[in-house]
Amino acid sequence: MITSKAAQAVITAGLKKATELGVRANIAILDEGAHLKAFVRMDGAVLGSIDLAQGKARTSALFGVTSEAVWDYCKPGAPAPGLERSNSGLMPFPGGIPLTSSDGTLIGAVGVSGGTPAQDADIARAAAEAV
Amino acid sequence: MITSKAAQAVITAGLKKATELGVRANIAILDEGAHLKAFVRMDGAVLGSIDLAQGKARTSALFGVTSEAVWDYCKPGAPAPGLERSNSGLMPFPGGIPLTSSDGTLIGAVGVSGGTPAQDADIARAAAEAV
Amino acid sequence: MITSKAAQAVITAGLKKATELGVRANIAILDEGAHLKAFVRMDGAVLGSIDLAQGKARTSALFGVTSEAVWDYCKPGAPAPGLERSNSGLMPFPGGIPLTSSDGTLIGAVGVSGGTPAQDADIARAAAEAV
Amino acid sequence: MITSKAAQAVITAGLKKATELGVRANIAILDEGAHLKAFVRMDGAVLGSIDLAQGKARTSALFGVTSEAVWDYCKPGAPAPGLERSNSGLMPFPGGIPLTSSDGTLIGAVGVSGGTPAQDADIARAAAEAV
Repeated sequence: MITSKAAQAVITAGLKKATELGVRANIAILDEGAHLKAFVRMDGAVLGSIDLAQGKARTSALFGVTSEAVWDYCKPGAPAPGLERSNSGLMPFPGGIPLTSSDGTLIGAVGVSGGTPAQDADIARAAAEAV
Repeated sequence: MITSKAAQAVITAGLKKATELGVRANIAILDEGAHLKAFVRMDGAVLGSIDLAQGKARTSALFGVTSEAVWDYCKPGAPAPGLERSNSGLMPFPGGIPLTSSDGTLIGAVGVSGGTPAQDADIARAAAEAV
Repeated sequence: MITSKAAQAVITAGLKKATELGVRANIAILDEGAHLKAFVRMDGAVLGSIDLAQGKARTSALFGVTSEAVWDYCKPGAPAPGLERSNSGLMPFPGGIPLTSSDGTLIGAVGVSGGTPAQDADIARAAAEAV
Repeated sequence: MITSKAAQAVITAGLKKATELGVRANIAILDEGAHLKAFVRMDGAVLGSIDLAQGKARTSALFGVTSEAVWDYCKPGAPAPGLERSNSGLMPFPGGIPLTSSDGTLIGAVGVSGGTPAQDADIARAAAEAV
């Protein structure tokens, strides 16, 4: 399970990357049970992204993959149509990344929203590297 | 935050445009936190549009863009599939417009429903100009 | 069914009374089907009262009595315990009043919230008299 | 609206007090529109308190009073029975405190959960003083 110290490091790294990109982001950290561990909303970030940051992180934590990887299973023609509506709704697009310990164990996930999906994914990757 | 006086001016302008177009509209004004500030339903407007007017305004307030602009992110092939299911459900089609103060600060949103999406957007634009 | 003109008169009378009492109120008007017809939130009214004003009006419209009259059926010892949890939740305390036409037909309800329950009821009564 | 800097100061003060009291707390900061601004869960805090911390803060933000002050309106014999079921459910017990700017304007709320209600209120008070 992710510690407060590690969660803070992830957020700090995410904020640094967001500032570099000029994105006003929401950053959510969940533990491996998909429960909220830490959250920050940068000044000026849109309100609609509060839910998106948490939703992307939740999607990653629940399946242990990036949020966009879930889309490969449920996009048109894929073998699990409707998967995105399971679990009270998943957010299967870029910005959610699993967090793992040095031995590869899933310890949580980070979710980012506020920029374009590509920017959100960049911020999430920078954040996740801080674990 | 939008004042009662400004909200009333927005509604009055919206009602004027709706009458010109022969549309029986619902008009909702939310503040910048997406909370209801004022609402009117014209006589004869369909009941299903009560929720739509508020939903379009909410979509605009949460993301600071027109309601239909959200669709560009989640339509088939776009980078954020399922975005429209976030925030307990968004309404990503025409009729919701952000309201801004003279310095560009988001102060709320107006949402209109009752006519065609194009008519609703016309009414919302006329309403938003009254801020 | 209450007209826009009548709804506006009810709101205007309610705003006048609220101003006299120094209360920053939310005022909701529903039609006889308990659907929102008009709403205003005075500047400075607390956000939590948006839902209360609509909830009291809804309680009145659904049963054709004042919102507090519903409490007589479900208060401790009364014959319908739990009634207040029906209809996705009722608000059985002062501030909701049915609106009737001159022949006594139910045409809607007004709900007020923002002051004490007693103040809210005073404002609702003043508002309802304007029909 | 509360800034990220102020939110961080509130959380830091709350964590300090919680550590002094030996409480493993969840601390949520909402803005004045009751939207999440920042959140931390201390290591070892119970999961059920994630929702409680946010619910107490939301109760405070929506009504501009402490979370327990809401109970005075809806406790047995009080004039607003069922108020606690409004707004999709309020948390009317200690641990939520409004945050105000130096001129008294409501800028948000802090909610704390993890200890006893009395401990949670102590932590929330210490946190709120940091604004």
